[in-house]
Amino acid sequence: MSIQNPVFIPGPTNIPEALRHAMNAPTRDHRAPDFVDLLKPLLADLKPVFGSTTAEVFLYPGTGTGGWEAALTNTLSPGDGVLVARYGMFSHKWIDMAQRHGLDVRVIETPWGEGAPAAAFEAALRADTEGRIKAVLVTHNETATGVRSDIAAVRAAMDAAGHGALLMVDGVSSIASMPFEMDAWGVDLAITGSQKGFMLYAGLGIVAASPKALAAMETACLPRTYFDFRDMLATTKTGGFPYTPPVQLLYGLRTALDMLNDEGLDAVYARHARLAEGVRRAVAAWGLKVVAARPELQSETVTAIYVPEGFDSNALVNHAFRAYGVSFGVGLGEMNGRAFRIGHLGMLTDVMVLSGLATIEMAMADLGYPVTLGTGVAAAQAYYRKTAGQALQAAA
Amino acid sequence: MSIQNPVFIPGPTNIPEALRHAMNAPTRDHRAPDFVDLLKPLLADLKPVFGSTTAEVFLYPGTGTGGWEAALTNTLSPGDGVLVARYGMFSHKWIDMAQRHGLDVRVIETPWGEGAPAAAFEAALRADTEGRIKAVLVTHNETATGVRSDIAAVRAAMDAAGHGALLMVDGVSSIASMPFEMDAWGVDLAITGSQKGFMLYAGLGIVAASPKALAAMETACLPRTYFDFRDMLATTKTGGFPYTPPVQLLYGLRTALDMLNDEGLDAVYARHARLAEGVRRAVAAWGLKVVAARPELQSETVTAIYVPEGFDSNALVNHAFRAYGVSFGVGLGEMNGRAFRIGHLGMLTDVMVLSGLATIEMAMADLGYPVTLGTGVAAAQAYYRKTAGQALQAAA
Amino acid sequence: MSIQNPVFIPGPTNIPEALRHAMNAPTRDHRAPDFVDLLKPLLADLKPVFGSTTAEVFLYPGTGTGGWEAALTNTLSPGDGVLVARYGMFSHKWIDMAQRHGLDVRVIETPWGEGAPAAAFEAALRADTEGRIKAVLVTHNETATGVRSDIAAVRAAMDAAGHGALLMVDGVSSIASMPFEMDAWGVDLAITGSQKGFMLYAGLGIVAASPKALAAMETACLPRTYFDFRDMLATTKTGGFPYTPPVQLLYGLRTALDMLNDEGLDAVYARHARLAEGVRRAVAAWGLKVVAARPELQSETVTAIYVPEGFDSNALVNHAFRAYGVSFGVGLGEMNGRAFRIGHLGMLTDVMVLSGLATIEMAMADLGYPVTLGTGVAAAQAYYRKTAGQALQAAA
Amino acid sequence: MSIQNPVFIPGPTNIPEALRHAMNAPTRDHRAPDFVDLLKPLLADLKPVFGSTTAEVFLYPGTGTGGWEAALTNTLSPGDGVLVARYGMFSHKWIDMAQRHGLDVRVIETPWGEGAPAAAFEAALRADTEGRIKAVLVTHNETATGVRSDIAAVRAAMDAAGHGALLMVDGVSSIASMPFEMDAWGVDLAITGSQKGFMLYAGLGIVAASPKALAAMETACLPRTYFDFRDMLATTKTGGFPYTPPVQLLYGLRTALDMLNDEGLDAVYARHARLAEGVRRAVAAWGLKVVAARPELQSETVTAIYVPEGFDSNALVNHAFRAYGVSFGVGLGEMNGRAFRIGHLGMLTDVMVLSGLATIEMAMADLGYPVTLGTGVAAAQAYYRKTAGQALQAAA
Repeated sequence: MSIQNPVFIPGPTNIPEALRHAMNAPTRDHRAPDFVDLLKPLLADLKPVFGSTTAEVFLYPGTGTGGWEAALTNTLSPGDGVLVARYGMFSHKWIDMAQRHGLDVRVIETPWGEGAPAAAFEAALRADTEGRIKAVLVTHNETATGVRSDIAAVRAAMDAAGHGALLMVDGVSSIASMPFEMDAWGVDLAITGSQKGFMLYAGLGIVAASPKALAAMETACLPRTYFDFRDMLATTKTGGFPYTPPVQLLYGLRTALDMLNDEGLDAVYARHARLAEGVRRAVAAWGLKVVAARPELQSETVTAIYVPEGFDSNALVNHAFRAYGVSFGVGLGEMNGRAFRIGHLGMLTDVMVLSGLATIEMAMADLGYPVTLGTGVAAAQAYYRKTAGQALQAAA
Repeated sequence: MSIQNPVFIPGPTNIPEALRHAMNAPTRDHRAPDFVDLLKPLLADLKPVFGSTTAEVFLYPGTGTGGWEAALTNTLSPGDGVLVARYGMFSHKWIDMAQRHGLDVRVIETPWGEGAPAAAFEAALRADTEGRIKAVLVTHNETATGVRSDIAAVRAAMDAAGHGALLMVDGVSSIASMPFEMDAWGVDLAITGSQKGFMLYAGLGIVAASPKALAAMETACLPRTYFDFRDMLATTKTGGFPYTPPVQLLYGLRTALDMLNDEGLDAVYARHARLAEGVRRAVAAWGLKVVAARPELQSETVTAIYVPEGFDSNALVNHAFRAYGVSFGVGLGEMNGRAFRIGHLGMLTDVMVLSGLATIEMAMADLGYPVTLGTGVAAAQAYYRKTAGQALQAAA
Repeated sequence: MSIQNPVFIPGPTNIPEALRHAMNAPTRDHRAPDFVDLLKPLLADLKPVFGSTTAEVFLYPGTGTGGWEAALTNTLSPGDGVLVARYGMFSHKWIDMAQRHGLDVRVIETPWGEGAPAAAFEAALRADTEGRIKAVLVTHNETATGVRSDIAAVRAAMDAAGHGALLMVDGVSSIASMPFEMDAWGVDLAITGSQKGFMLYAGLGIVAASPKALAAMETACLPRTYFDFRDMLATTKTGGFPYTPPVQLLYGLRTALDMLNDEGLDAVYARHARLAEGVRRAVAAWGLKVVAARPELQSETVTAIYVPEGFDSNALVNHAFRAYGVSFGVGLGEMNGRAFRIGHLGMLTDVMVLSGLATIEMAMADLGYPVTLGTGVAAAQAYYRKTAGQALQAAA
Repeated sequence: MSIQNPVFIPGPTNIPEALRHAMNAPTRDHRAPDFVDLLKPLLADLKPVFGSTTAEVFLYPGTGTGGWEAALTNTLSPGDGVLVARYGMFSHKWIDMAQRHGLDVRVIETPWGEGAPAAAFEAALRADTEGRIKAVLVTHNETATGVRSDIAAVRAAMDAAGHGALLMVDGVSSIASMPFEMDAWGVDLAITGSQKGFMLYAGLGIVAASPKALAAMETACLPRTYFDFRDMLATTKTGGFPYTPPVQLLYGLRTALDMLNDEGLDAVYARHARLAEGVRRAVAAWGLKVVAARPELQSETVTAIYVPEGFDSNALVNHAFRAYGVSFGVGLGEMNGRAFRIGHLGMLTDVMVLSGLATIEMAMADLGYPVTLGTGVAAAQAYYRKTAGQALQAAA
């Protein structure tokens, strides 16, 4: 028997039938005159998901990492200053990329479990009297720690410092699952991928660029071709693509947008918040602690959970996979061995979450964790039960 | 969001990916010379699942009900005596069919929750000194009550009575999930369908007939064409089919047999037994009772559970569906309103079962049942946990 | 390389992507309260395809052959007279079924290539002064010969004879592809299947019954359970089903009806007529003759073509399959070895038809037929070319 | 009716059922311990398709264009000399990329219809006494003109010049469809994609690098992160991936490799050559000319065909799409309006090719081309017919 349990990793997510169908399409000619009828509405309909009316959206065959590179290389030049805080594996990786592209990266080391430090950003920007800092980079939802940063606060800090740097935000594991307000927050570049909130296969890096970012594009000197905004703008304007587009993913994205809109973005966000709260109640019932330092930092798409002293989170995740055929997120970077993660985003129901909680309880019990079987499940049930009504309404 | 939770009905079952793929096939010509390469091995490879080396197997576009009709009409004549016990909805329906086809049906009324009454059969057969009874009909696994009858005991009763009637067994919800020994038990006609142990779409009635049954075919006078064994024998001998075969279901059946054989039939049976025991432990933890009157009668594919006095099992099943998007089996016939059913057959893991238990717990709590959240889950977890090792091995 | 050429058999047809997707669905509970939302509109929306506003529609897990049996057993009693002409393999098989069910079958032998003989029917009905004939059976589109009978003429003959027999019509290879007017033609029982005009997998027998047929049901004595209209009526009234329905086929049928309606039934019929005419022009260009005796008898869904004297049509069909991986229809019954068939129904384009014509030209050339490569293709191209405009409009 | 004709563009190709199934997979955790079991054999099994035993293979979520960028940025530094000939749209685009990445690009303008000019390369390399040229770039199969260059001749020229530049070859539309001998030809970097010879969805850029290329990697200074070989080497060594891999494409690639190996690479190449020759015979029968200047330059995967004076190839391709629902390749760059292209690679049969030829004949006739219907089809039939035997053997 092949095992077909849902996954509880923070992306790629479980894929709805409708999206698997949409992506299971025969070959169509991307140079045919009807390709424009697919592409243009897609680019337009992505804007509301980013919370923008003015951004240009770019779709790359690639991943969120490719989206990071597109954001940096299209708007910056070698030696440009970049301000960024390191508080997780994904902020770390973006820092590394910026350094390798010859940028002058100013890193604010921040404890893992915390989010973007608005006050420290403000101070650094105020100190940059010569305007060397051209961009502030923020990981909205740090997937490694389950921490959501306050982008509005970062924007406020930038405004308070009167600094004109671009604001670049990695929204890979937040966009389409948690509120994202590109225009309201003054975000210049926002990046996401196909395999999280959009519930598709991995394979698309999605970038939204503000008019200010597009203006910066004109003078940016970092070399680029594959990720060049200009090639995209030149071709997609007429419904073309600078190279072979992954049309099946575009079909899937079309259907994903329709699904999100049918449910309503606010309902989508509420559903994720509800699933997350159930998981956190289970964690509390187990007597464990989440990595996010404070409640307001808790992500609605992924929860990172410290294992007790003396236990190895990798062993736990491996055991759950090998013994029960269920995938959870391992601890990354500083969290390696210290925390495991439960992804609760995309196509997921309370019923599916309960199966994940039941599984990790068994796995913890198997490995001698001081956890009582059924306790986390019961805590989540109690929460989901009280709140099932509104969730079902949203799902109808 | 479309809801994609597993179902916990006693069939159709959740369908493995591999079988959905196999059934999602483009049109092939069933009159092409290669059709025989599909059909003949299929018929041969079904025999071991029935526990027979000598039976002929028939595949009908239809259902198990069609299989019942094939068994009756191919071997009996108007006015023939038929001995059968009524102890559930499906035995009741087969009785009804026999009556409508003009057979002389002798019904032994048996309490629901009990199985086939071997002693009463023996007595009735001994009393039939004129040999009017031509067939004994037994529902192996009464899906309405979660009761498995002892076919070997029925055979022993027939032998003890020295009676030559045919033994017809409905194995719709047992075959391919629970041990079935057509030859060893002296079964003459065994019936199943595609949508239970074979984990396929509904749409195939599958019948196995012993040499004795085929001999009876020669003189049977009940009218039949669609279900006529003779047309099937004449055409399938040369790799044909008497009408358009459902080739996609045949492709699926091919793959299903391969999957069952890869796992090993004994492992398949053990897996079902394990899943069933976990469910029963949950029931006990809830303080509820199963319908099966005694442990040895408990089915490994479906558990029927009495709701407490004053509760309506239909309301429970409907609530679970409407509030949580999960399907359980309603109470049928005498069990209508009094019992609900949890199907645990086919492509199902312990993790999936736990999600079903968690769901029905929430639903019971919502409706005021005296059930503590998490208790049934914990009882099943404790059992599945201890036994996960061997199950995973089987699944690998 | 697996070969994925289209098939040119007269059903099962090539399956549109949308229908494969619709049928590739996970398990849903057919006893859940939402099943009725699927079934009831389905039964209602089938009526216009039958050309009826008053018929009851029945959906059987089965085939068209099962539909024949449903029609006979639900309305007739042993010994009832049945009037029918034999002019092809499928009329022959229905005759055989009627005989085996104990009906008094009066067969008018008719040359293959001709259709239903209205005048002979009228004479036979006038001679039946005692009203022994309870039903007239007509194969609308004889798939073995590519002949379409004139049902309106049969009705006129019955009316002229003033005879009250039921009119039963096999529309398996015509309904949903060619005009069918159940009400206007006074048809009492019309039968079709899922795998022809509906472009689905085989596995559904579909029967429509007029009020007069339903009245006959009350007194009909032929034994039946699986195909009993009464069980269907009793259960589908409340959205249930007398046994496990093949829900995936029902999902497919839902989408098929939507596709047919989106295109418009008249456009569907016109498309088939256009494809058929192109095939016939190719046949003429090859210097071959169709089996249909006169132009007005030519079917729009299948063309049967005589091979020249001294050639074996079976060898041709087998060669096309083995050498080019393309399936055509073999000659059946009297046409065995004498004719081959090109199916042109369901999801098929002119472009696909041309590939079939090109293939059979190669196969004929390989086997020494006096046929010039490209001639049939050119004749069909010339026709399709002139008429491509309107076809594309219909397809848009 | 949705139209489902095959496409005749030079990629993405028509997709075999088996590959669509393989890519239609639920989410699996790419960090689970079994991911390595997928990735490592994949990388190993790609080598023979490149014709190499020593290369490292890299799989990028991206396209062939991304593969070009990976090749350049991983082995070169700003200002490095690059020698390349422009003889089509794809060589032109690679030149453009090299220029935008700050390389010193020395372009040999070559007539479109010709291939890589080995003699001119040799002269340029001999003249480069200071060794400024670090790489020679060659488009193996110029998809815009249907021209295959002689890579062995380029290698011979480099050797004759005694020059140590890297040899980079774009094999996007040749690899896995036409012979490619990376080791024998001394290719250092070879690039392809998933959507041509591998018959998958677009979305993978595939690069093979020789040991010499990997040595160059150590000193290459062009900035790169997403496409950095080093990140790939570091992670795939342990079965990981530097970012989220497109696992469904990897599943598809696994199955594609199995299919190619089952058929045998030589048989795959022979099949493409056979299909190509049939197309060229049709072109000759129409009295048209292919773009490839000489027979030895003719590609086996795509044929570019000049339209007669006074006709617009874009109008032809658009008409075929709009009137018949069939996609052909438009003329690109210098060929814009002057030539159209027929792709004949990937999952394609002779029967499918004939439908394409029949379609373009109709389209040409519709637009007044001096082409006789059926003539091209007949010429291809005559060729395919004689040679069907061996092709079928390969396909079995």
